[in-house]
Amino acid sequence: MPYYIGDVIGDSSLLVARTPEEFEKSGIRVMLNTSVESIDLNKKVVALADERRIPFDLLGVATGSTAHFPAIPLDVRDGVFVLKNLNDGLALKSYITKKSCRRVLVVGAGFIAMELCEAFRNLDLETVIVHRGDRPVARWDPELTQLIVKTIETNGVSFMTGRTASAVEGRNGRIRLLTDKESFEGDLVVFAAGVRPNTAVAKAAGIEIGATGAIKVDALQRASSESVFAVGDCSEAYHRISKKWVNLPLGDVANKQGRVAGRVAAGLSAAFPGVVGSQAFKVFNLEAAATGLTEEEAASSGFKVAAVTLWGSPMAHSMSKGRKLGLKLVADSRTGKLLGAQAVGHGGAWARINMLSVCLWADLSIDELMFMDMAYAPPFGGAWDLVHVAAQQLAKRL
Amino acid sequence: MPYYIGDVIGDSSLLVARTPEEFEKSGIRVMLNTSVESIDLNKKVVALADERRIPFDLLGVATGSTAHFPAIPLDVRDGVFVLKNLNDGLALKSYITKKSCRRVLVVGAGFIAMELCEAFRNLDLETVIVHRGDRPVARWDPELTQLIVKTIETNGVSFMTGRTASAVEGRNGRIRLLTDKESFEGDLVVFAAGVRPNTAVAKAAGIEIGATGAIKVDALQRASSESVFAVGDCSEAYHRISKKWVNLPLGDVANKQGRVAGRVAAGLSAAFPGVVGSQAFKVFNLEAAATGLTEEEAASSGFKVAAVTLWGSPMAHSMSKGRKLGLKLVADSRTGKLLGAQAVGHGGAWARINMLSVCLWADLSIDELMFMDMAYAPPFGGAWDLVHVAAQQLAKRL
Repeated sequence: MPYYIGDVIGDSSLLVARTPEEFEKSGIRVMLNTSVESIDLNKKVVALADERRIPFDLLGVATGSTAHFPAIPLDVRDGVFVLKNLNDGLALKSYITKKSCRRVLVVGAGFIAMELCEAFRNLDLETVIVHRGDRPVARWDPELTQLIVKTIETNGVSFMTGRTASAVEGRNGRIRLLTDKESFEGDLVVFAAGVRPNTAVAKAAGIEIGATGAIKVDALQRASSESVFAVGDCSEAYHRISKKWVNLPLGDVANKQGRVAGRVAAGLSAAFPGVVGSQAFKVFNLEAAATGLTEEEAASSGFKVAAVTLWGSPMAHSMSKGRKLGLKLVADSRTGKLLGAQAVGHGGAWARINMLSVCLWADLSIDELMFMDMAYAPPFGGAWDLVHVAAQQLAKRL
Repeated sequence: MPYYIGDVIGDSSLLVARTPEEFEKSGIRVMLNTSVESIDLNKKVVALADERRIPFDLLGVATGSTAHFPAIPLDVRDGVFVLKNLNDGLALKSYITKKSCRRVLVVGAGFIAMELCEAFRNLDLETVIVHRGDRPVARWDPELTQLIVKTIETNGVSFMTGRTASAVEGRNGRIRLLTDKESFEGDLVVFAAGVRPNTAVAKAAGIEIGATGAIKVDALQRASSESVFAVGDCSEAYHRISKKWVNLPLGDVANKQGRVAGRVAAGLSAAFPGVVGSQAFKVFNLEAAATGLTEEEAASSGFKVAAVTLWGSPMAHSMSKGRKLGLKLVADSRTGKLLGAQAVGHGGAWARINMLSVCLWADLSIDELMFMDMAYAPPFGGAWDLVHVAAQQLAKRL
């Protein structure tokens, strides 16, 4: 009988059960609020914190990731948040109401920070991002992130770069965030400083951990021990473009890996075909999406990099009313293959990056993109789409 | 010296010139309002209506298409329109204002009819579509067009099917459209009954016409005579999925073919790689897009057809507020290859069809779509996108 450790993750449209009781009807026992202390791979037994022991034939490790919290002094707990799971979100929401918060601090500037600052501004909260880097969402290059910065600032977010958080102090029910430069006051602070794969129990059991810090798996999601599967944020995934194993803590990847592990465990055929690194988020009226490798990642994977960045609009120019769409393509000048793409725009970014994700998936060359047949109508782009124009410009640099 | 016959077509973002004078500065002579009467391929001379003769080394035929007008009695010209070019549009717009039109009739239910009825409703005109078929936009199957019908009707368009126009009469400055059933009155009528390739002059010159009625070309856009190129609506295009030559009168196809012909004529390398049949339009709050073959087209091209139609939403279910997205996939059960896709939805249709266009372009199988890496975020779809779910369901039928 297989046991699964970790959160149940799933899209509600596909889940056959939503409560432990519903799962049990399908023959799946769900034990919530139950910590696994250790795994004994020889005896095939999982030890719980309450000293119960559960035997297994096959073990699925889906322990996910943990919100990273910088190692800084904290003299207060109230008003200090991370946002990793539903309970974190509910606690944050209730604190804002209960304490009539007016001003919030966000440490970090990744996806979650971006989505948070939109949610905070919708609640009409003064919002300050305090970020140690010089731009948001490092996966996107500076040519494109400038529009993100402009957008969050236009929407009233104060974006403070080059500040590293050094301590949090409580003062009269408020929060003071100290940095290597000035300090910031607010009613609460959220640390949105990324996640780390949650692998302590697996590692202690002797399950092999990869260079990324996540659990090593094969295409069938089998970990180093024959009877153990690992899926989701705690595991690695094969990147089809860099040909490296990466840790990509994204919900869609976790879902796919979970299905593969489930099928393989049940003796059915399945293999996880890897990722090309597609990702997206929305902040205010802006879409951001990316796939494949950045210029820097491509260079460090040994490719000879050529790139082009173009600005256009997400619809025909006659309809665009100032709306912008920026697209960057990265290619290998030795083989002419597409290696990656990034887009930011007032619409149209997600769509184009998904197209380009398929181009990466199918290992296409830039010259195959130049005259590619896309569905054209003025509300969606020009007769020559930005993808065509960018590919044609990039081809000249190869 | 090459001469080009026909309209100048182009996306304003890419055109280096917009007026005849600007073209002349680039060394391109533009003769507007000038009819070509005949082409003499032996003497390499074009004869104009005013009896001037223009010699050529290479000839580009870009005569486009003509709005189809059914062969029915017309006892009035005023208030009877087609919409093929900018002047048609301006004439229609000015007539509506000048005559204070209140009620318009549209014959036909293709792309142009759909776009027209949105424009008319935006002007608050009573709008009646009179259509001989049983559904709009025949390129989409009935499972999906039901949402289009619902949308145009919700927006106040009266959609009358199974009525074949038989005559137009004028009555007191108004129009009466007779059909094989009842007759309809309005202030004007627009015939949106499709287009036909405009090939009379080419045909008379002995240039070979294909089975589609359009000019036969090769991948370099060369017509049957060595010194003649043909591009755009008047020419054929190779369909990569059906492996047949088709006439696909779309602006993006015309642009690409024009660039290929221009490069080849100039001695540069280029080839038009063909089409997969991608197309899209928007009507009210609905996107419709399609690519590849319909079930019927696939069957008549000799494939063994399997298909699936699914309804979901263009974003995560928790955000969708009733917004719908329908997706149909068509595959060949002998090879497992994707053959076509259709989508209709409150957003998200164009994006998914473009992804699937690339899948067709790259000749992918359904099993390669099942776990394909797409950029996921709740504003754009579920962790399992409709494309994944449809592919997984279709795989079971192959």
